Amino acid sequence: MTTKNKELETGTNFTPRFAEDGLIPVIAQDAQDGTVLMFAFMNRQALQATVDTGLAHYYSRSRQALWQKGEQSGHVQKVLEIATDCDQDVLLLKVQQLGPGACHVGYRSCFYRVLDGEDQLAIRGKPVYDPLTTYHPDKSQ
Amino acid sequence: MTTKNKELETGTNFTPRFAEDGLIPVIAQDAQDGTVLMFAFMNRQALQATVDTGLAHYYSRSRQALWQKGEQSGHVQKVLEIATDCDQDVLLLKVQQLGPGACHVGYRSCFYRVLDGEDQLAIRGKPVYDPLTTYHPDKSQ
Repeated sequence: MTTKNKELETGTNFTPRFAEDGLIPVIAQDAQDGTVLMFAFMNRQALQATVDTGLAHYYSRSRQALWQKGEQSGHVQKVLEIATDCDQDVLLLKVQQLGPGACHVGYRSCFYRVLDGEDQLAIRGKPVYDPLTTYHPDKSQ
Repeated sequence: MTTKNKELETGTNFTPRFAEDGLIPVIAQDAQDGTVLMFAFMNRQALQATVDTGLAHYYSRSRQALWQKGEQSGHVQKVLEIATDCDQDVLLLKVQQLGPGACHVGYRSCFYRVLDGEDQLAIRGKPVYDPLTTYHPDKSQ
């Protein structure tokens, strides 16, 4: 292990490694019961906004824009802790998920389906809110 | 939402979306206590090997090779469940981690450091094994 690697992997300097596209993968986990709620990316600006506000901000690759989780749905994530992995190229947030759920299709966690057979998924749990009324209140009337 | 997206996001066909580089991000979580142990990538072959053997296989980007978790250390991961997220471009494994830990620097979880101040990390927990004797038994004598 080189000195540089040793500091990165076992030291106490926070030097998050953003990939060539400027992004770092982020896992959001419910601080209370450990449920993995969602997976997204941050750029440096999103990380800074998260640290500054205590609310999870991510970077949308499809929209190429910074966003605050819950800015539209109100399902905000209060960030209680930010951990990083041994090579500092992934972040793990412990969050308090406000509102019923983190998943935009209506479930608490985005990981609401499990492999059940060769290529079939089984759905775990029930939807906890109606995405149509939450994200498109105009269309639901 | 298009019909294609609807099937992807809420249907029961398992159609994992590998990125352009052929890889999909994977989170490994302890099935018993919910600890997020590590983050890695799989290619299609690694996913198939995982399904076929029930043991976690990943793809190493640095070594450009398929590897079985624990093949060197013995710290094998028995996969109890494979979940996917709403857009099927991330996998979440619920695993039974054999051996003391998942992290190659000697901790149970790779996420053993948390942000504590502007750019400082605080170490959580203690090392659970000696990586030198585990990974380089020849050098430790």
